[in-house]
Amino acid sequence: MNKGDSNMGDYHHGGFTLPGEAGYEKLTLELAEKWGADVIRDSDGTKLSPEIVEAGYRIYSTICIIREHNAFAQAHPDAQQQTFLSSEAVLAEDETIEIPLLKGYFDEQFEINDSEEALEFWQVWDRTANELVPRENWRYENGAITASGCARWHRYTASFLCWRVWEEINMYNHTTNHWTSEHLRQLDPRHPLAWEYLKDWLEKWCVANPQTNVVRLTSLFYNFVWIFGDDMRRRSRFVDWASYDFTVSPAALRAFEAEYGYALTAEDFINQGRLQATHRPPTAAKRAWMDFTQRFVAEKSRALVEIIHRHGKQAYVFYDDSWVGMEPYGKYFASIGFDGLIKCVFSGFECRLCAGADVPVHELRFHPYLFPVGLGGLPTFSEGGHPERDALAYWLHVRRALARQAVDRIGLGGYLHLTIGYPAFNDAIEKMAVEFRRLKELHGHGAPTALDIQVAVLHTWGSLRSWTLSGHFHETDGNILIHINEALSGLPVKVKFISFEDVLNGGLDGVDVLVNAGLMGDAWSGGDAWRDPALVAEITRFVYQGGALIGAGEPSAAEGGDTLFRLAHILGVDEDKGQYACHAPWAFGTEREPPLRVYADAFAERRGIRLTDPETKVLCAKNGAPQLTMHDYGKGCGVYMSGFEYSPKAARMLLDLLILLTGAQGCAAGLCDHPLVEAAWFPADSTLVAMNNADEPVDTAIDCPKGKVRVHLGPLETLFKEV
Amino acid sequence: MNKGDSNMGDYHHGGFTLPGEAGYEKLTLELAEKWGADVIRDSDGTKLSPEIVEAGYRIYSTICIIREHNAFAQAHPDAQQQTFLSSEAVLAEDETIEIPLLKGYFDEQFEINDSEEALEFWQVWDRTANELVPRENWRYENGAITASGCARWHRYTASFLCWRVWEEINMYNHTTNHWTSEHLRQLDPRHPLAWEYLKDWLEKWCVANPQTNVVRLTSLFYNFVWIFGDDMRRRSRFVDWASYDFTVSPAALRAFEAEYGYALTAEDFINQGRLQATHRPPTAAKRAWMDFTQRFVAEKSRALVEIIHRHGKQAYVFYDDSWVGMEPYGKYFASIGFDGLIKCVFSGFECRLCAGADVPVHELRFHPYLFPVGLGGLPTFSEGGHPERDALAYWLHVRRALARQAVDRIGLGGYLHLTIGYPAFNDAIEKMAVEFRRLKELHGHGAPTALDIQVAVLHTWGSLRSWTLSGHFHETDGNILIHINEALSGLPVKVKFISFEDVLNGGLDGVDVLVNAGLMGDAWSGGDAWRDPALVAEITRFVYQGGALIGAGEPSAAEGGDTLFRLAHILGVDEDKGQYACHAPWAFGTEREPPLRVYADAFAERRGIRLTDPETKVLCAKNGAPQLTMHDYGKGCGVYMSGFEYSPKAARMLLDLLILLTGAQGCAAGLCDHPLVEAAWFPADSTLVAMNNADEPVDTAIDCPKGKVRVHLGPLETLFKEV
Repeated sequence: MNKGDSNMGDYHHGGFTLPGEAGYEKLTLELAEKWGADVIRDSDGTKLSPEIVEAGYRIYSTICIIREHNAFAQAHPDAQQQTFLSSEAVLAEDETIEIPLLKGYFDEQFEINDSEEALEFWQVWDRTANELVPRENWRYENGAITASGCARWHRYTASFLCWRVWEEINMYNHTTNHWTSEHLRQLDPRHPLAWEYLKDWLEKWCVANPQTNVVRLTSLFYNFVWIFGDDMRRRSRFVDWASYDFTVSPAALRAFEAEYGYALTAEDFINQGRLQATHRPPTAAKRAWMDFTQRFVAEKSRALVEIIHRHGKQAYVFYDDSWVGMEPYGKYFASIGFDGLIKCVFSGFECRLCAGADVPVHELRFHPYLFPVGLGGLPTFSEGGHPERDALAYWLHVRRALARQAVDRIGLGGYLHLTIGYPAFNDAIEKMAVEFRRLKELHGHGAPTALDIQVAVLHTWGSLRSWTLSGHFHETDGNILIHINEALSGLPVKVKFISFEDVLNGGLDGVDVLVNAGLMGDAWSGGDAWRDPALVAEITRFVYQGGALIGAGEPSAAEGGDTLFRLAHILGVDEDKGQYACHAPWAFGTEREPPLRVYADAFAERRGIRLTDPETKVLCAKNGAPQLTMHDYGKGCGVYMSGFEYSPKAARMLLDLLILLTGAQGCAAGLCDHPLVEAAWFPADSTLVAMNNADEPVDTAIDCPKGKVRVHLGPLETLFKEV
Repeated sequence: MNKGDSNMGDYHHGGFTLPGEAGYEKLTLELAEKWGADVIRDSDGTKLSPEIVEAGYRIYSTICIIREHNAFAQAHPDAQQQTFLSSEAVLAEDETIEIPLLKGYFDEQFEINDSEEALEFWQVWDRTANELVPRENWRYENGAITASGCARWHRYTASFLCWRVWEEINMYNHTTNHWTSEHLRQLDPRHPLAWEYLKDWLEKWCVANPQTNVVRLTSLFYNFVWIFGDDMRRRSRFVDWASYDFTVSPAALRAFEAEYGYALTAEDFINQGRLQATHRPPTAAKRAWMDFTQRFVAEKSRALVEIIHRHGKQAYVFYDDSWVGMEPYGKYFASIGFDGLIKCVFSGFECRLCAGADVPVHELRFHPYLFPVGLGGLPTFSEGGHPERDALAYWLHVRRALARQAVDRIGLGGYLHLTIGYPAFNDAIEKMAVEFRRLKELHGHGAPTALDIQVAVLHTWGSLRSWTLSGHFHETDGNILIHINEALSGLPVKVKFISFEDVLNGGLDGVDVLVNAGLMGDAWSGGDAWRDPALVAEITRFVYQGGALIGAGEPSAAEGGDTLFRLAHILGVDEDKGQYACHAPWAFGTEREPPLRVYADAFAERRGIRLTDPETKVLCAKNGAPQLTMHDYGKGCGVYMSGFEYSPKAARMLLDLLILLTGAQGCAAGLCDHPLVEAAWFPADSTLVAMNNADEPVDTAIDCPKGKVRVHLGPLETLFKEV
């Protein structure tokens, strides 16, 4: 082994979870050996054969606790889960109208709940006047509401409760893959009989599965919100990975009222038909409901974990699907007592999200999933697929995050037999597993050095939604912030996520660079939070006294002030949405020698940005509109970015910007001359990890605490070099 | 003379106003002959010589009534005009701050008015908290305000009154053309001494100028708002051709309070520093102030007109510069008693604006102005200039409007000697004058036929701002509506302009197609007006019962409803500004056989438009976003256009759309097969006027009430053809 340049070594075993497959016992054990698995798990809907179970590996068994109890659900239909829906709007041509409730919804997903206790929560709205229709003016019959006393030419909607009679993940798989098996239903643990049934079922399951070491909960109780339509032109009407609508029921609403002393209404959920999407700032009612639900989920989960522990097993939870209320960065997560958190990852920010959660074991499930088709219906393990390319593309995102913060385990999911005929994929996974183990070992000896830069990302949700917005990168990539988070996930800086309340409670102490990135009115920019002068004043103080602010998109935007960006005085720019009518903008030129390498492709062209101060420096402009600016403010600085699209070059520009704003020493953490090479310096092992993001060989030098180190890197190579 | 195809005839004299020039008497009389002038006028700053005055032409003499009284202004500085200004914002690092007032303003334009009566109206604002600072917390000295008791890290501004010590048009000419003559000042007719002085001056002027037939007022009292900065990077800080800020003074404010029973404050004008631009919906206070000012201007103007009439002269008014308060479509305009309205025109909508005003004589002043440089500083009558091309380009806009509605006179302005060396220009003007006279004669025998289509353009200002938004096309061409108005100005349809109040008072009676075009929050879209459910309901009724709605840009947009466009249910589209987060849009295809010729260049790409109804037909899409859609609604139809950029082809598309929406018979007004040829049919003379907008010969046919008429047109030709 070449000590100075070693990518080999005893890194071939451990920390790897393999999805076993009955009927493919030989393949299972062969790949377990190749990939160095120490754990074999079953996948959804598969059971491991004794040959696998008895091969000496630890065993994970997957449970979806609220699903696959159709007999009970049929016997107790009122134990099923529910949601509020809003009808389409109906125009009142006359004083009496009929509102069909489920028109436009997928009738295999929903059944109207017209029970007495449900009807109590129904509402009819005049959406034209934004007024509630008195209860005595409407009645329900046969799937429709008849409302009288309507104002002519106004539009009316009805908000109603319905049962969700098809578990959404099962529904998705059926409708996407043309499955024909029985539709699975889902139980609401808030229903007393269902809850007793579920506990009993788990108890029996544990007894019946002595071979299982880890119960892998996939996942908890309430699915993220996924509402189907009946028209294929809009099959998936609403999807929000972090919304709470599917937790509602009359029982839950009554429990809330009993505890909080006030009642929530359908409108608190329906919100004029828009629902309460995570990307929008929550109402006080939604915040209260979330806390209420989180406590409920934690309490029930704790009870399940206790059963699992009592049987000598561990409880890991998969953070997806029916995760709602779990919130790994929420107040109650640690109290549940999970032994591990498993996160499927496409991206760096998801690694950091998993790695930072307060739980003993952090495990990543890599992509691609072992399935014929992948994201967006493109082939992976089927004709035309290149799963090894997909795996590598995801790995490039994951690798840089793993270089910053370790996790304990990695693994795969899906149907193992699909890997037959894809040896390049199998080799790629083997290599990644080795690199993962090397990184894990280095981290085990001590953290890599980071620059002395504390970044704080500021948005409505604060630490509750650390790293993620909601769901995966490709589900939220229309938001600037996820691109910034992805960039930050692999940068040698400290990152925290703070809320507007945090700012008012000393949250800026110790912060070097504050980031606010989003569009006007969204949860990431902050919306109405910016109407609070105390918030604006505190950030003004922070920058004036030497802090830095990076605002991207429409940072701090809120109507009602003398500027649209409430921090325009710091940024030195504002956006004209018409309010500057007749006011000429400052003419400007672009800096001829910008103080950092500007990578213009990172900025989508945004129109309407204008200088509010002639001293603002424009580093990048497109079609006459500034896209990247810097503005000195007191002892600090405001930087405006019109947008930010993640790429390795964009991430490097962000790092250079952070260094420029703080005066930090780049060499402290291993800064490379080449913009496509990233590095991490592990002082305990005096080892440099250099990662080539270029698809070609690179010769370059890396500045690290031991001086400039020259490296040669193959295309996309990860180099571990003792210095 | 060829009766069937005659562009010649006795159309060489009359209806033409020539700017005479002393020192160029021969040229003046030669061009008067060539262009068929019946009137010679002086220009600003020039006086006609006896040789011209005595040549038998009617004489216009130009007067700028409030200017050129510097001696009086110096003797009575408090008779000068004023305005409110806002200082730049000053950050409170400490509890006491100093706010320099005029910093950033052009100090040759403004002098602080710190008189007792002015100080009473000053204000200091905490712009961070949006709170007024108590009067006792600040004092003024030496150009700056010192404020104490400030909240740290808040920003403060001061609103103050100042004298405008340089008449703005004079200031513009000085600073643009490096004039060195004395700066002209302007008097406020509200000042009693100034008013007596001005009346007396006019009286004496009339006596001293017996040769003058028409006093050409250029113009009245208050200039449009034009605020200069001291930095050449933003010399022209604020320009609004239709704002009223320059009418303010302590005397006016006190008179307002006495009449209305409540006082206006500086903030009613300053509006957080944004002032009250015409493109934004006015506050109730601004509406009241405008009415108050209009009455004052009408009353004072009437007194001047009476003096002029008493001397046996006529009073024409030039509608530009110091026009504020005159409002030709306002309630008081007719009461002034002007004998003529003169409008300088670049565009068709300006012709219609002039032609439709309630005044005996309508006169257009053509462009280019006889000046070395024209718009945007490009040469006209100087090296590199092509004034004949400029004239023709404007004429193509004006011609089609003149074909729809006649005016009485045309003319030119500026320095006649500059035409020397530009014979092509002189020939072009001769030809235009002939065509103008032919059109005028045809109109004199009876109006051209129009389609049975009543269009109503709906915006905040309604009929007060018929045709214009504010100022010329090139000053407002960032607004969709001016492009639509320009297209409409030459279409064979009836057009009126209505306000939101009109809609609630039967304004939709007789309307076939309603147009709302603007951006969210602007005066043209309507902003908060759309929060009124009665407005939405009435338009809903109108369309549902068979009317048509064309919405362009962000029509009816206002936050707070279940859709952003309050008429989304009619249009079948809405715009996603983030509020649709997690809601999937309807997938759509573009119509393969659209029901009209789609001219995609007319639509600037707008992102975020989505269907609200799968039945909405998409006629044009760009980058996956609908740009032109149609949506049946009840018996009517909603059409959405993402934007509209005027061109002859775009205008034709709009005409085709109006015909499609109403089922009107195109042949009734002369519809041409060729999209670049427009026509007007004059039934009294059985004459077809065909106008070629193409720069090449066209053979085509025109459908008119007498059947299909084949025509051959030279490039850009106007053909008068008896049928």
